[in-house]
Order: sequence, then C-alpha cells, then structure tokens
Amino acid sequence: MKSLIIRIECADAIGLVFKITEIFFRAKLNIIENGEYVDELNKRFFMRSVVSGQVPDNEALKRDLLQVLPQGARVDISTNDTKKIVVFATKEHHCLGDLLLRNLYKQSNFEIQAVIANHADLGDLVRKFNLTFHYLPTEGKTRQTHESKIGTLLAKYNYDYLVLAKYMRILSPEFVAQFAYKIINIHHSFLPAFIGAKPYNQAFERGVKIIGATAHFVTDDLDQGPIIYQDVMNVSHHYTAKELAKAGKEVETAVLARALELVFEERVMINGNKTIIF
Amino acid sequence: MKSLIIRIECADAIGLVFKITEIFFRAKLNIIENGEYVDELNKRFFMRSVVSGQVPDNEALKRDLLQVLPQGARVDISTNDTKKIVVFATKEHHCLGDLLLRNLYKQSNFEIQAVIANHADLGDLVRKFNLTFHYLPTEGKTRQTHESKIGTLLAKYNYDYLVLAKYMRILSPEFVAQFAYKIINIHHSFLPAFIGAKPYNQAFERGVKIIGATAHFVTDDLDQGPIIYQDVMNVSHHYTAKELAKAGKEVETAVLARALELVFEERVMINGNKTIIF
Amino acid sequence: MKSLIIRIECADAIGLVFKITEIFFRAKLNIIENGEYVDELNKRFFMRSVVSGQVPDNEALKRDLLQVLPQGARVDISTNDTKKIVVFATKEHHCLGDLLLRNLYKQSNFEIQAVIANHADLGDLVRKFNLTFHYLPTEGKTRQTHESKIGTLLAKYNYDYLVLAKYMRILSPEFVAQFAYKIINIHHSFLPAFIGAKPYNQAFERGVKIIGATAHFVTDDLDQGPIIYQDVMNVSHHYTAKELAKAGKEVETAVLARALELVFEERVMINGNKTIIF
Amino acid sequence: MKSLIIRIECADAIGLVFKITEIFFRAKLNIIENGEYVDELNKRFFMRSVVSGQVPDNEALKRDLLQVLPQGARVDISTNDTKKIVVFATKEHHCLGDLLLRNLYKQSNFEIQAVIANHADLGDLVRKFNLTFHYLPTEGKTRQTHESKIGTLLAKYNYDYLVLAKYMRILSPEFVAQFAYKIINIHHSFLPAFIGAKPYNQAFERGVKIIGATAHFVTDDLDQGPIIYQDVMNVSHHYTAKELAKAGKEVETAVLARALELVFEERVMINGNKTIIF
Repeated sequence: MKSLIIRIECADAIGLVFKITEIFFRAKLNIIENGEYVDELNKRFFMRSVVSGQVPDNEALKRDLLQVLPQGARVDISTNDTKKIVVFATKEHHCLGDLLLRNLYKQSNFEIQAVIANHADLGDLVRKFNLTFHYLPTEGKTRQTHESKIGTLLAKYNYDYLVLAKYMRILSPEFVAQFAYKIINIHHSFLPAFIGAKPYNQAFERGVKIIGATAHFVTDDLDQGPIIYQDVMNVSHHYTAKELAKAGKEVETAVLARALELVFEERVMINGNKTIIF
Repeated sequence: MKSLIIRIECADAIGLVFKITEIFFRAKLNIIENGEYVDELNKRFFMRSVVSGQVPDNEALKRDLLQVLPQGARVDISTNDTKKIVVFATKEHHCLGDLLLRNLYKQSNFEIQAVIANHADLGDLVRKFNLTFHYLPTEGKTRQTHESKIGTLLAKYNYDYLVLAKYMRILSPEFVAQFAYKIINIHHSFLPAFIGAKPYNQAFERGVKIIGATAHFVTDDLDQGPIIYQDVMNVSHHYTAKELAKAGKEVETAVLARALELVFEERVMINGNKTIIF
Repeated sequence: MKSLIIRIECADAIGLVFKITEIFFRAKLNIIENGEYVDELNKRFFMRSVVSGQVPDNEALKRDLLQVLPQGARVDISTNDTKKIVVFATKEHHCLGDLLLRNLYKQSNFEIQAVIANHADLGDLVRKFNLTFHYLPTEGKTRQTHESKIGTLLAKYNYDYLVLAKYMRILSPEFVAQFAYKIINIHHSFLPAFIGAKPYNQAFERGVKIIGATAHFVTDDLDQGPIIYQDVMNVSHHYTAKELAKAGKEVETAVLARALELVFEERVMINGNKTIIF
Repeated sequence: MKSLIIRIECADAIGLVFKITEIFFRAKLNIIENGEYVDELNKRFFMRSVVSGQVPDNEALKRDLLQVLPQGARVDISTNDTKKIVVFATKEHHCLGDLLLRNLYKQSNFEIQAVIANHADLGDLVRKFNLTFHYLPTEGKTRQTHESKIGTLLAKYNYDYLVLAKYMRILSPEFVAQFAYKIINIHHSFLPAFIGAKPYNQAFERGVKIIGATAHFVTDDLDQGPIIYQDVMNVSHHYTAKELAKAGKEVETAVLARALELVFEERVMINGNKTIIF
C-alpha cells in the first residue's frame, strides 16, 4: 500500500493533533509513524506523519488540513519517492564518489540528474557512471555571469535539491534566495564556535546536533544555515595537518550521506535557523 | 502547569491517534510531546504523550481512553515525578557511588529509599549520604530464604523500581516474576557477547578493540531481558585485563545512569523482549 | 629521504631497544616514529620503527638485527609503499565500491590487482574502474576444486594481501593456511556476538541499541582471527531488520577501509590471536 | 619490582634512542613501555619510557642522560605514584563529586589534599568525605588579595597539581605563571573554533584531540592552554538549553576524570601549545 508523508507546521494550539488525525481518520489514512514537536519558546507546532492509504487528491487533503489549522499553517504532502538532485563539485572526489556509488546502486533515496563543477578534474569520474558532467569554469567571469550560467543549466533539469559536495565557490545571496532550504552543503568543520559565556545557551540557539563535520542548509548567511547532521572522529598528536585533512574527508563523506538520507526521507523540518529531525 | 505522561499500548487499528487525542482535547489537555510507534510485524501500537493540564481524576481519564481502544489495551498515566528506588549492590562501588551523588543533588529523577547489599563493604559509603544500608548476607542461606528476607525488607518500603547496581547475585525467576519490568540491571558487556563470568578476561583474551555495557530489564531469562541502553569505549592492546575492567566500570556507570533517566522519565515501553524508547 | 619500516618481534630481554637502536645508529638511520610493546604475560617484545635514511641492503640490516636479538626473533623490513591487493567479493557492492574509489584516487595505500567473485553481479562495477574482474562460480564444484581455481588465478598476480570485501564463501583451513595473516575480512557484527547467518535479524530480534562491525585477519578458526579494528553506530527501535542491515553496511565499509590503512601502513603486529596496533 | 617513568624532551638528533637506551641498559633497567615522537616541523624529540628496575639515585640517572642529550634537554624521572592534588570548585557539584568518589576508593591515581571554593555551597559534600574544605569568598576583595589568600593556603599543602573542577573564577596570569602546566581545567565547550579557511591547518596548529568538553592545562592565555582530552555526546532538537547544560555536565565529568588519569600517569608531554599523549 502506498504511503504519504505529511508535514505540518503552525502556531501551537490545543487540539491540533486531534483535529489533524480526525481528518486522517475520515480519509481512511492509517498512521504508521508519527512525530510531533512543540517549540514552547516560540509556540510553534511541528508534526510529521507517515500514513498508509491513499487519497484521491493530495491537494484536497491539504485544503482540509489547512481549514482546521491556525492561520499561516504550512502543510507539505509527499510520497517517500526518490529525490532528484543536481550535485555541485570542484576538485575533491571524496563526497562526489560516494554519492555516485550510492546513486548507481540506489542505496540512498536520490537520483543524480547531473553534476556541475567549476573545474574539469572530476569529469572522468562522473562519466564512468554514465552521468552528465557540466564544466562551468569561473575564470574571467563575474559571479553574476557564472551563476546565471548555472541557472540556465539548472533550468534544463528536474530536481528537488542541489547538493554541494565540496563545491568550493561561495554562492551569492541572490542565487541562494531562489532555493530556500533546497541547497545542502557539507562544511569542513564543526559549526559553530562557542567561545565565551553560556555555551549551552549558544548551542541551543544555534541548534547544534553535535560537532565534527557539519551538513547544513545553505542560506544567505554563509555557513550559518540550519544544521542537519554533524559527526566527529578522534585524532591525535600523530596527525600531520595533511593527515587531519584526510581524516576530515572521511567524516565529511559520511556526514553528507547521512544528512541527505534524513532530508530526502522528509525527516527534517525547519524551525527558524534550526532543524527538527523526526 | 502540571503535566501528565500517558503511555498507551494496544493492538494497532485505524484512527487510534484521533480517538485518543479527541479525549485529550475534550479534557482540555494540551499535547507537549508525542511519540508513536507501530510494530508492523506484530500489529502493535505504542504511544507516549506528555500533556499539560490537569484532570480531576486520572482513573476516569484512563477509563475514557480504554473505552475507545481495542480490547486488551494498556494505559499508564503518571506525572513525571521523581521515582522511588531501592538499590541493590554487592562490593563494587562505581555505580552505587554515582547513584548516591545523583540522589544527593536530585540530579536525576530518582530518590533512593534504601540500599540492600549481600556484602557489608559498601555500608560506610551509603551512610555518608545518610541513607539506610541493609546488609543481607547469603552465607548458609538457600536462595529462597535469602530472597524471602529481601522480600520482607522491601515490604517496608515504597518504591517504583529496583536497581541492580552491580548486584552479583542471580535472582530467582520466582523473585523476578513479582517485579515485571521493575528491575533494572547493568551488564558488564555488550549483550549478546561474553555472557558469563570474567567478561573482561574474555575480552582481553579475544583482543577486542571496543568494550561496552548494557542496561536492561531483568526477566527470568538471565541477561536476556529488554535492552534499555548500550554504549561503548575504545580500548587497545595496551590494556591489561585489569585495565579493561577499570575502563568497563566507567562505561557501566554512565550506561546505568542514562538508562535510569530514560525509564524514570517514562520514555521506555516494552514490546515483547525489546524496548521502545520515546 | 626514503624511509623504512622495521618491525621486530622476539622473546623479551633486557637491552633490546638499546641493541636494536645501536644498529640503526651505526647504519645512520634516524628514528622518526617508534612504538614498542611488551606482552608481560607471555614475555614477548614487539617494536615498530619508522626510520629515515637508507641502507645498501635490507637483508644485511636484517641479519645484523637478528644477530643481536634472542633466537627465534622475527624481523620485517619494508618501505611504506603501496600494498598490492586482490579483492574477493560476492554480491554486495558497498565495501567493494568504496575500495574501488580509494584505489582510483590512491586515497589509501593500496593498489587493486584484480577482483575475484563467486557471482557475476559486480563485474560491471569493477570494469567501470578498468580493473580485471574474475568470475569464479561455485556451482557444481567442490570447495577444493573452487579453491584450486582461485589458487591458479592468484598465481598470476603479484599481491601482498587478499581482502575479503563481503566475500560470502567460507575458505577452507587448507586455503587459509597458505596466507598466514595475509587475508583480511570484514565481519558483519561485533565479535564475539551474533556469529552465524542473518546477524541483523538476530540484532533486530534482540533489540540492540548499537550495531558494529569487525575487521580481522582470517585464520582457520572461522571469524576468530585477530581483530584489527571495530566500530559501532547507534540504532533504535525504529529500525527494521532491513534498515539495521543497511546501517550495518555503512559501518562495515568504514571499518574495513580503516583496517586496511592500519595493516598496510605496517602498523599491525600479530600477538597470538590478538593484534598490536602501533 | 618498582618501575620508573622517564620522560625526555630535546632537539632531535640521530642516535638519541640508542644513546638513551644504552644508559638504561647499563643501569639494568628493562623497558616495559616506550613511546617516542618526533615533531618534524620543529625538530623536537619526545620520549616516554616505563622501565622496571631501580637505580640508587634518580638524580644520577638524570645527569647521565643529560650528558648524552643535546643541550637544553629536559629529563623528568618519576615513579608512577599517586599524585597529590588540590581541587578548586565553585557551586557545581558534578565534577567535584566524581573526584571525591574516585579519591575515596583510590580508583584513579590521585589523592585530594583539600578543596578550595569561592562559595560555601559544596562544603557539606566535601566534609562527607572527611576532607578539608576551604571557603575563600571573593566579595569585597581584589583579585590580587583573593589570589594571595589562595597562595597562603596552598603553601600549607603538598601537591603536584591544582585541578579546577568547574572553578568559575579567572585566575590572573601572575597566579598561573607560578604553576606552569600544573593547573588542569575543564572547559564547558569544544575548544577551539575553526571558522574560516584551512580548518585542518588550524586544528593542527591548535592540537585538538577531538571536540566536546575540553580538559586543558591553564596558561595565561585564557582557555587557550594545551588540550589534554576532549569528548562529545549527541544531542537533538528536543534538548532545551537547560537539558543541554545537564548533558554537558555528564561530558565534563567524564572528560576531566580521563584527563587527570592521562596526566597523572605521566602520559602527557607539552609541545609548545599542544600536548603529546603517550
């Protein structure tokens, strides 16, 4: 039986779960998995339901839900299908290679539509996997020109997310603004830094999940977008800077892969500048 | 405002969340935190709700819920109050000491009512914290006699859980049967693995690179009860069997403390021989 | 400047480091990294030295060392060159794919000479990377015949190690005996624990909160060879047996890759049925 | 048989291990454990040897060693005896309580001589363990006056290290200067922050071991002293700021305890602003 993933975000109020599940019940949808979270500071309600069953019209279900929810509510209904992605890369192969293998074996729930790179180096690798590699050099181009070329290219593809797999160019706020919470980046470090007083309050405000390499949504505030996943590994005084970088790549590869799974299974909701992971 | 924790377990059916939350809604209870899990293999439904608000009578609320649930449903309603525990120990101090400190500062949500030990060694430690220490030696006693003495002692106390903090006596199935899922044990190893005596000698012989510990409910099948929490630490060839045991104690202490928090916050539900952790 | 890795194992005695390093000194070899371990139970001495400099003849250096060491000493001298490996696989791609990528980019210190599989499935993947894939089916063949075919094939290659990257056939003690501590396997579990078929079904039935993987040398005692590396990840009641298996593959991939690095950097020495990792 | 721990630091040169171990050999000292590290960037040599045997005079052994080492070498000879410590605290009990328990059972290799606090709150706890508690309030005192009172108090004790177990006062550079690498602090966060370019080079320069709570030596540059040990734990969006702080305390407690073990077993050497952990 098919299943739907329904994600709801709205102002908190009494009876929300009752009202929502009443609609599920009348539509003969059976809840398989349900996650709910109330941000008590900001009085926001978040719910993710996986339901089995089918409705004739997702849009009608959405309208029914919006009718019982507080004004300004947001409802997303999707099937847990594979997500289409375009991958951005530069010269480093570790994250891209891992994604290409996962793509080949449908090991994770995404399908790579194309790879765009600002260097030619990774073309051979991508072509081994019979995927399209677009080389868009930046030399002699303004950022605006370069990004407009990317935009033209993207227009040819169907995609749900853009994945920056060690893409070493900064995207302009104008570019990013077109893809709200649709660009996922892997950061070579632990975001953020909690120097000074009240670190746990800072950590709370920042919504950290842990430290290590960090996968996050890209917003116009560089490296400051909502954190999706973080992990770490141990190192010692034996590591040279080069060996630290090598070790870091292992963590980056694993963290990006895990973050994509979480997002593509629709487990991630945005709460201000943090994520909620169901 | 006071909050209730309501845990429900029953056969799975369509509309359960709707029917349950309708009752919450009519009782003016607001859901703060909600967890739900359906065991699709066994068609069992599990739900844990933290609700704010108050009802005049918890038993009436329970009856209302049972009325809309499939036959054989189980409903637990509790306030997230501190749990009363009796701790069992033998000679090792590491878990007990940690629990005594947490108790003193109300750092975790339990109150130690008394400590029962089959050796006298830890009496001084317990008395430092102004708690009652019962020394019940086993020498010259049958298991039955010894356990009957424990039973008599326990009858004097009010308690929610019995915590075996490195209690090195095996409890009889008859004894255990009286306290279904109310006895929590810390096991000196991953489970399953290295069952039996001298686990760290076994780990040393095998040359493991990781050691762990497992907190679990005690059932009549020794060390086979539902697992609550597990954790590990890295070790190396440098560790002697004695050093492995020392390292193991650090893990045991941390794992037991965490497991108690999960159980006492009513986050743990039993599903056959497994746990569900909300 | 070139560097040598010298590994020495012998009965423990006073003055060993002095006698060994005196020879290094006279040969104008400078110690860059030095690890030493004495197994005090068995009175065995282990030492691994990375030295910079060069000697006209490694064999002469070895003879000089043996002359000052107790009888029965073992001396290995090697340069930290890339190791040549033959990879064995069956149907699962996760470990093999990862090794192929590392091989392509010389990311780890090995060079794949060929891949041997008892199923044809992974041939396409291997050929993408322009490597030789040998399909040696087992149907209708005795183990002896099959292994003799493997032997014939291996005879054509130059290799230092055989890597079982989810090779699901048991190798006979006779076969294994030819490659003492030269076969590395990845095991789908912690060892010891869940030995046998369908480990993730066992893990699921037991309701574990952690799963792991173990890389070890293959000896004639199945899955009981010296452990090289182990790691774990957290899981929860949400995981189906299938999801546990998927998660397990991620750990297996990472653990095998790390174990190979340790072995190929000559960091691993054998001490009975255990490893010493320098 | 007694054992000595000998730590040597000097400019790197050919033949150092030979020259050092020749002296061990002539003194009939048997090496049980040996660690060596060469900082190739700065051409510094570090060695830690655990030797069994005994010499009539440690100072004579030291002189013999200094004679064969490059000028400016540093030699420390000690027995792995229990270290004497004075603990500083403020109001938080978690680290202090853990240290008091370890002290009581000689679980770690330290003996608490006294506890000094700038608040009276923890006095009862310390006295339970029959240890001296000094309450030195800071109100109405300049830093200088307060620290001079601490100095007067410390003069009465024999101690090897000062342990800041959540001591929430900043010590002046003048005070710290008197105790080079003899003050150990636990920091409530992950030190340091790697925002910006070349994070792995930054990490290398900073000498991190991992991130999480951080135990470090106190130098006059606040929170910037050499890192001894770090660890992490996972958190989620469910954690309030208060719960994050609670979780942080668990990590702090474990990290400080582990760091003390490493330092007190003489496993830690200082290399500029980093540590080498043998």
